[in-house]
Amino acid sequence: MSESSGSSEPAPAVAASGATGPLLVVSAHAGDFVWRAGGALALTAAAGHRAKVVCLSFGERGESAAAWREGRSLAEIKALRRDEAERAAGELGAEIEFFDAGDYPLIETPELTDRLVRVHREVEPAVVLTHTLADPYNGDHPAAARMALQARILAQAVGYDAPGDPLGAPPVFLFEPHQPEQCDFKPDTLLDISPVFDRKRKAMECLRAQQHMWDYYTDLARRRGVQLKRNAGPNLGLHHSCMAEAYVRLYPQTTAVLA
Amino acid sequence: MSESSGSSEPAPAVAASGATGPLLVVSAHAGDFVWRAGGALALTAAAGHRAKVVCLSFGERGESAAAWREGRSLAEIKALRRDEAERAAGELGAEIEFFDAGDYPLIETPELTDRLVRVHREVEPAVVLTHTLADPYNGDHPAAARMALQARILAQAVGYDAPGDPLGAPPVFLFEPHQPEQCDFKPDTLLDISPVFDRKRKAMECLRAQQHMWDYYTDLARRRGVQLKRNAGPNLGLHHSCMAEAYVRLYPQTTAVLA
Amino acid sequence: MSESSGSSEPAPAVAASGATGPLLVVSAHAGDFVWRAGGALALTAAAGHRAKVVCLSFGERGESAAAWREGRSLAEIKALRRDEAERAAGELGAEIEFFDAGDYPLIETPELTDRLVRVHREVEPAVVLTHTLADPYNGDHPAAARMALQARILAQAVGYDAPGDPLGAPPVFLFEPHQPEQCDFKPDTLLDISPVFDRKRKAMECLRAQQHMWDYYTDLARRRGVQLKRNAGPNLGLHHSCMAEAYVRLYPQTTAVLA
Amino acid sequence: MSESSGSSEPAPAVAASGATGPLLVVSAHAGDFVWRAGGALALTAAAGHRAKVVCLSFGERGESAAAWREGRSLAEIKALRRDEAERAAGELGAEIEFFDAGDYPLIETPELTDRLVRVHREVEPAVVLTHTLADPYNGDHPAAARMALQARILAQAVGYDAPGDPLGAPPVFLFEPHQPEQCDFKPDTLLDISPVFDRKRKAMECLRAQQHMWDYYTDLARRRGVQLKRNAGPNLGLHHSCMAEAYVRLYPQTTAVLA
Amino acid sequence: MSESSGSSEPAPAVAASGATGPLLVVSAHAGDFVWRAGGALALTAAAGHRAKVVCLSFGERGESAAAWREGRSLAEIKALRRDEAERAAGELGAEIEFFDAGDYPLIETPELTDRLVRVHREVEPAVVLTHTLADPYNGDHPAAARMALQARILAQAVGYDAPGDPLGAPPVFLFEPHQPEQCDFKPDTLLDISPVFDRKRKAMECLRAQQHMWDYYTDLARRRGVQLKRNAGPNLGLHHSCMAEAYVRLYPQTTAVLA
Amino acid sequence: MSESSGSSEPAPAVAASGATGPLLVVSAHAGDFVWRAGGALALTAAAGHRAKVVCLSFGERGESAAAWREGRSLAEIKALRRDEAERAAGELGAEIEFFDAGDYPLIETPELTDRLVRVHREVEPAVVLTHTLADPYNGDHPAAARMALQARILAQAVGYDAPGDPLGAPPVFLFEPHQPEQCDFKPDTLLDISPVFDRKRKAMECLRAQQHMWDYYTDLARRRGVQLKRNAGPNLGLHHSCMAEAYVRLYPQTTAVLA
Repeated sequence: MSESSGSSEPAPAVAASGATGPLLVVSAHAGDFVWRAGGALALTAAAGHRAKVVCLSFGERGESAAAWREGRSLAEIKALRRDEAERAAGELGAEIEFFDAGDYPLIETPELTDRLVRVHREVEPAVVLTHTLADPYNGDHPAAARMALQARILAQAVGYDAPGDPLGAPPVFLFEPHQPEQCDFKPDTLLDISPVFDRKRKAMECLRAQQHMWDYYTDLARRRGVQLKRNAGPNLGLHHSCMAEAYVRLYPQTTAVLA
Repeated sequence: MSESSGSSEPAPAVAASGATGPLLVVSAHAGDFVWRAGGALALTAAAGHRAKVVCLSFGERGESAAAWREGRSLAEIKALRRDEAERAAGELGAEIEFFDAGDYPLIETPELTDRLVRVHREVEPAVVLTHTLADPYNGDHPAAARMALQARILAQAVGYDAPGDPLGAPPVFLFEPHQPEQCDFKPDTLLDISPVFDRKRKAMECLRAQQHMWDYYTDLARRRGVQLKRNAGPNLGLHHSCMAEAYVRLYPQTTAVLA
Repeated sequence: MSESSGSSEPAPAVAASGATGPLLVVSAHAGDFVWRAGGALALTAAAGHRAKVVCLSFGERGESAAAWREGRSLAEIKALRRDEAERAAGELGAEIEFFDAGDYPLIETPELTDRLVRVHREVEPAVVLTHTLADPYNGDHPAAARMALQARILAQAVGYDAPGDPLGAPPVFLFEPHQPEQCDFKPDTLLDISPVFDRKRKAMECLRAQQHMWDYYTDLARRRGVQLKRNAGPNLGLHHSCMAEAYVRLYPQTTAVLA
Repeated sequence: MSESSGSSEPAPAVAASGATGPLLVVSAHAGDFVWRAGGALALTAAAGHRAKVVCLSFGERGESAAAWREGRSLAEIKALRRDEAERAAGELGAEIEFFDAGDYPLIETPELTDRLVRVHREVEPAVVLTHTLADPYNGDHPAAARMALQARILAQAVGYDAPGDPLGAPPVFLFEPHQPEQCDFKPDTLLDISPVFDRKRKAMECLRAQQHMWDYYTDLARRRGVQLKRNAGPNLGLHHSCMAEAYVRLYPQTTAVLA
Repeated sequence: MSESSGSSEPAPAVAASGATGPLLVVSAHAGDFVWRAGGALALTAAAGHRAKVVCLSFGERGESAAAWREGRSLAEIKALRRDEAERAAGELGAEIEFFDAGDYPLIETPELTDRLVRVHREVEPAVVLTHTLADPYNGDHPAAARMALQARILAQAVGYDAPGDPLGAPPVFLFEPHQPEQCDFKPDTLLDISPVFDRKRKAMECLRAQQHMWDYYTDLARRRGVQLKRNAGPNLGLHHSCMAEAYVRLYPQTTAVLA
Repeated sequence: MSESSGSSEPAPAVAASGATGPLLVVSAHAGDFVWRAGGALALTAAAGHRAKVVCLSFGERGESAAAWREGRSLAEIKALRRDEAERAAGELGAEIEFFDAGDYPLIETPELTDRLVRVHREVEPAVVLTHTLADPYNGDHPAAARMALQARILAQAVGYDAPGDPLGAPPVFLFEPHQPEQCDFKPDTLLDISPVFDRKRKAMECLRAQQHMWDYYTDLARRRGVQLKRNAGPNLGLHHSCMAEAYVRLYPQTTAVLA
């Protein structure tokens, strides 16, 4: 999966993994979508589907300690974070949109939720990803999740006054927070991101201020990969060194086959 | 979907739904596998895979009130229940084996668990189904579940002294109890059993003493079908009048695609 | 229980069931009070007590898909929903008041909560009914519940600046949502509504746009009735074909007898 | 309510509280039924119903530290505990039966459960009381509860081979453990035992070795009484200085009225 | 521990108990800090550390029933409560600051949270205490807790625009509500307040309108003290008659020794 | 902390961390005590206290896959595992005792529990460590935990017939399972094992068949160390590169200081 392995090999693998349609990721800060959902985004893009990220803020106050300590201005920090996030999205093959709603605290408003409804109507996601509803270390994460979930519901109503058709019922998955047990994050879905892990790593490397995270989240992917193999049914053909992302499914899975 | 509707049409539908391999159902009493997992069994059989049921008891004491009131003997009741269950299994295309371990109470023993280990090793299930771990109305159900889950783990150990190869890690789903909320049963998987519901209905009709249950579980399938449609992603092509069974997944799902 | 059974017969039955005083139902949308609490309202009214419904919205955006698809205007839809709800309340013997606060989303405000305090002070309910605090399918329901519960607490304070005496401590019951398991709704109270089920059915039939719900909630009442009989103590004289509504009690029951 | 207050006054009060039939209390050790369910027993007896206690053990090893420190023999301690418990039961108006199954540990066996089935069939309780299912300080308590709950279920089966008719579905309440929060004991039922508290106090005073508990459980009754008043609906006529016992209901309440 | 026992004896005991630094208590109403955290405040002050209380409101509407019934004006009640609280803080050796944000309801705002951030930055607490996140009897308590927890997180961000240095990660403990089980309060920390209980009692006695609470919270301290002794490891030298306060720790404890 | 750092430096650090007395670890299989509690054992031993491990089995069937695949006999495997475990215990400074009770399944018996009672009475532990009560991947772990917890309670009773004095109330901590989220393991205690991590690493390296685990549990210690630093209060002097073990406390902490 290294750069030298060529682009021709992973493509069929990804096609085989079969993404089902557009993916929408709602993220409190720039950066979250890379660490927590970069694999899902890259898989979706590689399968030829639209992969869209909404960053509600740049994480300019709460997630940019180094820049503040260097004496940067607020405008500089926001520009820096935007630039990094755009390049990371590019590596993943994803679009990115910034709401610039401010962070620490990210304050829930009907206006932000309405903007998210419009995005849902426009993207018509097959799957939605967002934060956990509990996070005792970061109040912005649950605030983003509450708005994302509310927006998805509102977008389903034909009577909601926004452009586009009413949304269907795309499944929602909550992505992994930094301290999973403290956020009541009990993974029930392990996504094999092996075919695209090199792209996730490159996206991580775009976030230059958080270099210590690159290895942290590479290790996490490896551990989740070990769990995936331990939990996998015997019929699933898995890569030897599997990399994975963990998720929690919010609504019942609907399926034509138990597996 | 009835027999007269022709076999050519449902077959592709079932094939399309793609069962992944042998199915093992561990049931406390005869009857449970029909009401709670009949659709999964029929889907598996229709897809050409082995579908095996283990009944730990006949439900001769706890689930045969009418027969006792008619003055039947224990031996008669067990024979009656066995006969009904065998015919129901036949309708579903499933094998059935009776452990005759007694019910009310079904008492956990290392010997029963060992017999279940041997079944796991022999069947090599791709999926295992059993009861919920809580049921304040019926202590036999959790007892069966505890033995089934323990047996599956033991069967995985190369050092366990029983014939056959160590088992892989087949996913486990808990099937729906009679009073779901009281058993902490929060469905996270809704299985579309529309293509085989007529077979499940016929299997139910083999259980002649529990005629009031036929409509009860037909209605339940319809309601779970309504939920399936409400929760389904927009890309899933669903039958107009969908029938479903509800399950709870015990281990994380491993997947190559979020959907 | 049909119309021809005459009004003289149910009245004593209801009197025997002994409602204890005024009932207040706080509902997010028109319709909810019928499907979820119609039996409790009719029982209360039949026992000669005041039965009052507050609808925070008409459900004009989120629960009126058919009307929007027919091209109706917002004003038309609100008028239609109001008319239907008023006729349904009439069938149940209940008063109804609309706050017209808007739905999808219903937004919590101190002003709405204050209006609910004033209703509590004026009605002096013996029992309060409202939505569950979790509903992943509809954010308006928990929003209504939070305001109702907050208002009941505020109404108890002598220092709260609103007309009337401080409220006592009426018990609160949460009524059944559409997908109970997904809303963490574990019923701990099953109310026998057999004596008034015909009235509830007539009230349901006032909601003409949601005809498919009539049978759905009739079936639900029958199922909850089956559970009621299964859970009933041996000394409770129950109707043969029992109809019931399920509730969750929010505060401890205070009683002079265990039963 | 003391003996000198005359028997004419409390009788109506108790009659007004209306017990509904025989009460069965399954207790791990002698003593538990007094501290935790003495009020319910006395209320039942005062209302003219049978009140029966089964003590699975005397608490001879785990709850008799003082006697062991005094150098008593096992036989002496058992005789002492039996005598105290019999006199306490007498004060409450209750029958008592000892299974002498040993404590610390109380070991679950099919034979003990069968004996409990036979008691259920013979007593035909309208209500069953037992321990919580969790108690990190005392393994005998959950063991007793598991056997009591299993026995109640088995007694319901017509096919269970024991004298008497199949049991109905008496409600079960779990009584209050010594450290409620640590046992996940969240009371949902507060029973007014004011009319019989003096009898409970006298019964407590029969347990001479545990004198420090007399005031502890008097204080607890007073605190639960304060909670009862705080949670009581406005229409309930309550004694000024209310005494109460707390319980957790295991199965849904079935009722003809919300209150 | 009475006044006559002299000041020389308790001081070393307190020093031995070793408070670790400044303590910050965020309280919805005047009074809460005395009943629920008075011991922790007094211990901290006695050890020579700063003990600071923020009262978001005076509890003028929701917790001053007697004063309202006496016909006092809002201004009078606020002055009375302020005076009582200041004297109670004085007995404990604590500073107190009132935000006068209004109660019943206490409404969450970004401005109040910002003021709390500034307090955190200024006090640099080693420990933070506040209310539980659930309280079905009082919506102000969770509102205060949410703002306190949010403020502590915001104060940690170097990018948050407020004077002072970024906060470290002081542990947070939730103090005991009035009806612990109903607030999902399962104590995991029992604090020995024996050396300072006399100061807490004196502080309680400053709250003259709530005289019935003095004994209630003295009894509670005694009961929690009994639990402390029952749960204490064998090596902990404990006072004979131990008084304690119960807390729930919100973040993992970090330690160099298991004990 | 490497061997070359000399023994004079770590000793004071460990003394400063202050273990409080003997430590008892109850482990289902040989190996568990190394991966999950090796740091706590080494800290205790380094502080001059007794550190004792009971292995209920050798893990000969369930945790020795490689040896079985090499065709070793049962006796050989047990001898191998015993030897490895003894050497690992030696590295940690711990005693080890094997009950040889068999694994996969480890079957709970009164006799095993009685043996554990006798160990508790003999060791008089200041702290007890054992497995989690839930583990869907390994039934032996909860079985060991249930027996350990039961034994600790029995050992407290003066009336329990075993040599030695009644046990006090040593705190219990559950150590970290392999898949924490799936075992409902939410750490509430992070133990700094930096001063002894080199000893834990050497002990791990004694377990030669499980070489892939050495790095896995080194990484885990590093991650838990990062969490320790993130959760630590500002006054705690922490090593730069901190290593930690995670635990869940079973009973309330009793303390003279909040920190």
